[in-house]
Amino acid sequence: MLTALGRQLRVDAVRAADFAGSGHPTSSLSAADLMAVLLAGHLRYDFEAAQNPANDHLIFSKGHASPLLYAMYVAAGVVSSEELRWYRSSGSRLQGHPTPALPWVDVATGSLGQGLGIGAGMALAGKRLDRRDFRVWVLCGDSELAEGSMWEAFEHAGYERLHNLTAIVDVNRLGQRGPTRHGWDTAAYARRISAFGWHTVEIDGHDVEAIDAAYAEAAASESPTAILARTRKGKGVRAVEDVEGVHGKPLPDAEAAIAELGGRSAIRVEVAAPEYERPSRPDELRELAVPVYEQGRRVATRTAFGQALASMGHARSDLVVLDGEVSDSTRTAYFATEHPDRFFECYIAEQQMTATAVGLSVRGWLPFAATFAAFWSRAYDFVRMAAVSGADLCLVGSHAGVSIGADGPSQMGLEDIAAFRALWRSTVLYPCDANSTAHLTAAMTEHSGIRYLRTTREDTPVLYGPEETFPIGGSKVLRSSDADEVTIVGAGITVHEALRAADALADEGVRARVVDLYSLKPVDVATLRRAAADTGRIVTVEDHWPQGGLGDAVLDALTGSIAMPTVVKLGVLALPGSATPAEQLRHAGIDADSVVEAVRELVAE
Amino acid sequence: MLTALGRQLRVDAVRAADFAGSGHPTSSLSAADLMAVLLAGHLRYDFEAAQNPANDHLIFSKGHASPLLYAMYVAAGVVSSEELRWYRSSGSRLQGHPTPALPWVDVATGSLGQGLGIGAGMALAGKRLDRRDFRVWVLCGDSELAEGSMWEAFEHAGYERLHNLTAIVDVNRLGQRGPTRHGWDTAAYARRISAFGWHTVEIDGHDVEAIDAAYAEAAASESPTAILARTRKGKGVRAVEDVEGVHGKPLPDAEAAIAELGGRSAIRVEVAAPEYERPSRPDELRELAVPVYEQGRRVATRTAFGQALASMGHARSDLVVLDGEVSDSTRTAYFATEHPDRFFECYIAEQQMTATAVGLSVRGWLPFAATFAAFWSRAYDFVRMAAVSGADLCLVGSHAGVSIGADGPSQMGLEDIAAFRALWRSTVLYPCDANSTAHLTAAMTEHSGIRYLRTTREDTPVLYGPEETFPIGGSKVLRSSDADEVTIVGAGITVHEALRAADALADEGVRARVVDLYSLKPVDVATLRRAAADTGRIVTVEDHWPQGGLGDAVLDALTGSIAMPTVVKLGVLALPGSATPAEQLRHAGIDADSVVEAVRELVAE
Repeated sequence: MLTALGRQLRVDAVRAADFAGSGHPTSSLSAADLMAVLLAGHLRYDFEAAQNPANDHLIFSKGHASPLLYAMYVAAGVVSSEELRWYRSSGSRLQGHPTPALPWVDVATGSLGQGLGIGAGMALAGKRLDRRDFRVWVLCGDSELAEGSMWEAFEHAGYERLHNLTAIVDVNRLGQRGPTRHGWDTAAYARRISAFGWHTVEIDGHDVEAIDAAYAEAAASESPTAILARTRKGKGVRAVEDVEGVHGKPLPDAEAAIAELGGRSAIRVEVAAPEYERPSRPDELRELAVPVYEQGRRVATRTAFGQALASMGHARSDLVVLDGEVSDSTRTAYFATEHPDRFFECYIAEQQMTATAVGLSVRGWLPFAATFAAFWSRAYDFVRMAAVSGADLCLVGSHAGVSIGADGPSQMGLEDIAAFRALWRSTVLYPCDANSTAHLTAAMTEHSGIRYLRTTREDTPVLYGPEETFPIGGSKVLRSSDADEVTIVGAGITVHEALRAADALADEGVRARVVDLYSLKPVDVATLRRAAADTGRIVTVEDHWPQGGLGDAVLDALTGSIAMPTVVKLGVLALPGSATPAEQLRHAGIDADSVVEAVRELVAE
Repeated sequence: MLTALGRQLRVDAVRAADFAGSGHPTSSLSAADLMAVLLAGHLRYDFEAAQNPANDHLIFSKGHASPLLYAMYVAAGVVSSEELRWYRSSGSRLQGHPTPALPWVDVATGSLGQGLGIGAGMALAGKRLDRRDFRVWVLCGDSELAEGSMWEAFEHAGYERLHNLTAIVDVNRLGQRGPTRHGWDTAAYARRISAFGWHTVEIDGHDVEAIDAAYAEAAASESPTAILARTRKGKGVRAVEDVEGVHGKPLPDAEAAIAELGGRSAIRVEVAAPEYERPSRPDELRELAVPVYEQGRRVATRTAFGQALASMGHARSDLVVLDGEVSDSTRTAYFATEHPDRFFECYIAEQQMTATAVGLSVRGWLPFAATFAAFWSRAYDFVRMAAVSGADLCLVGSHAGVSIGADGPSQMGLEDIAAFRALWRSTVLYPCDANSTAHLTAAMTEHSGIRYLRTTREDTPVLYGPEETFPIGGSKVLRSSDADEVTIVGAGITVHEALRAADALADEGVRARVVDLYSLKPVDVATLRRAAADTGRIVTVEDHWPQGGLGDAVLDALTGSIAMPTVVKLGVLALPGSATPAEQLRHAGIDADSVVEAVRELVAE
């Protein structure tokens, strides 16, 4: 039966790609026996209740094998054989690569090297938070073992002894454009993976008995297990089996291939469903209490974030925090001290930190993950894919901009606003003082999708009283009069420069409105348009490269309106070196004096 | 003498951090003996001629140990002991983390996990291109071994058997916020690293004889060698030795520490300089000949890029090409066929591909590296740091935007323009046809810094004749009249939509100017301002998220001018699924019909 099921999965995979006229049938054929045995004998999954927290998780890290995944859904009886006709068609949930448009898909894959790390996050949740005995099965390609992120995942899972995690590696020896580095040398992979503390099993990936035994061995192992399965790409169809140059294409003659595979069949697998359990719910949500700071005190926003987060941890039992080995700097260390059970040290592995966060979020936890703003660039592809998955993540980048001072450009986040704005359905926040930071940290929990908070290393004065509110999408007008000739828009550290500039300008008789644009996406269009209409001139000032940041967010808010104001953008214009924070702001042309000069020029025109 | 030299390096590192009032003296102290032995006995370097191609390369991958590096320069007699006073000061070349502001520093470090991969690139150049016997020494931290990029480097160097590469791992067991995963268990690291084909040596990193022997062993090895040196962070100063919580801070009592270390000394090391060799020069540069395409033919810009690149390889012998296992898709395969000796397969490891490119560029080669536009997000931190280093890289992203069609969002580059624009001194190009692509591919070689070319998967009509030129920073006005009421600005695939829209609008009596903005950074300010002044209305249309892309580049070009036009930005507004390219453009709201609608609304206002 298992061999027959494997054949059926192949036939349906071939059919799907043929209907679509594109897709990756050969990459599906190599793994079909592996998945047949899993589906029929080892996966515990209630397809009628995808939200059952006792369900196993299956991740296709090699997302291009989606025809195989969808063929499994056909065999499980939840997708009709007919629906395969719509594979890769507009509006179909059977997309080219799996996404959570399907209820049984936890995360979008297709950017290789991500599935195992996310699976490790889920397994970590099972072991340390949910304390349930579901298993996580991840189908990996051999090509993707070249990605460093895979080795972050192996290290993390090995170190945490995630016995509930199994990597099933489809070693078909052929990548997209030719042979992989190690071909069918499964021992080469086994040496590497076992060095990271994993149990490894090498098998013939078309021998259903060997596969069955390997899964049983994995389930009994006290370490995570990697099954290294030698397979043949295009298995079962002579025209493409183990042939180069046929990756990512429908088979040349699908009809003949289906005949060669034994023709269509309609085997229906009764997948073993675990008993239904009610999803855990976080304790009754208490009102989030965050610390309040006295106006005029000097407190770094990173510190206010850390204190708010630690405080919120008491009210929300579903809150978890992840660190990239910089918790003393980002201030997530405060949370670690008060809630050690919900704090996860991910060491200097920002990709795995993000993957773990995604995995925890799939299991219903709300992750905050923090590192330096600059080092989010290390995990950008993971964050991009998390956005595609619709994952709920709260990400925090400290040490933003040149204002960090002497450490120099490698440590300065100067592109993070651009990167985070350019993500599907993201939120980007950049508060300037401790009270707004605390409020926004709390507000992040009630939002959805990727939320990014940018914090500042230096102490800055507390501007706002405890009664102020900071809705996402809002802003604060800090100086305003009927006679304003110009509007200065800043966020974070530059709000303080803008205020100083406005005061200096007032002494010269120039009235400047000052806007604290703490929400960069979504942005407060109404306030900015009013400022444009009232003052006709806008100066934006940001501690970021001039591309894609605050200035562009302001300009974007003004598009479509009839009367565009004159806009001058101030941003970091030269590569910084080491210097004091004040010197850095001056050299970058974003300090109060630079703002004053820009305004003077603008009003003189 | 070696022990005394180690002490002197420590003293100078302590002094530097003390002068600055910041920095990482304890991370310098642990590695001081390792560097003393290297400098005095093994490094072959002509400090008077940093450009000597026979010189070894020394990379501080743990860039925060910069006080130690600068102390080495003092010992080598090229930096005065006095200059340490200016460590981390404004204008000083002794920055918080090393940058090529110093002639002996090849690349900026400070984002951990990058130095080894770059070193592997240099070693690869030595072995396969330069055929010189210089060695590459990389000082690594133990914490950074958590970065997946390190394992991409281990894999790449092990596979290529880069005998000329040595990783010196300073296993001081303490990261920034506490102990590392494996502490002093050097065997844990040795198991992992040797599984990747490296020779490993475990030593006491404060035993100068053992260090000396290890370097000799590395030099004799036929594989790359990792020296795993057990050390004590803060070694030599009781107050901080092997103590948690003192990372990244000057010592509490520098004077006492210097006394405890034996006081100041002025040992001057005669570093063994290799005989001077003249840097290799590429052959006489011949005029770059690129293919010419007939107007009206349909050719994908990715194909034109690949053909131009292969053709340029004949004229420029310094041109090298790197692939992330997608050369058939990006079309670098054409180059591989014609110039196999200068083609480097990096498999699916975009970070290591970038690091290799940086390493090759340090050795004077001009690298083109290509993958899907979406997957550049995987290497964003590496590209960011390459920009800080001032590296000359030509990067190419294929499969841009929703127009790839059925593969779905994981494969679509929709944030790459934003990411690449927000880099220091970057160039961003996005041609719409084969002839402009070929010209711009050639133009990239004559530019400097990070150059990014975005190409399209689909075939598009050839618009331009062979006589046209495409200077970087320019644009093409494709439709224009004295009666234009609106300007439509597109690039790449949307230029064709813009032209269709203009034709449809002309039928309705609306004259639209059409601009092909093939250079997104720098951008053609003059043409855009003229269009703004002439037409008063601009519609931008781009196959990219609306943040940070073409629309923002256009708005940026218009800032500072008195009369801002009304601008409407069209960009991808919803998460795409699978669909045909034409359907994708329509759903995204960036096809010709969408442009026509936007223009109609705008002119009606």
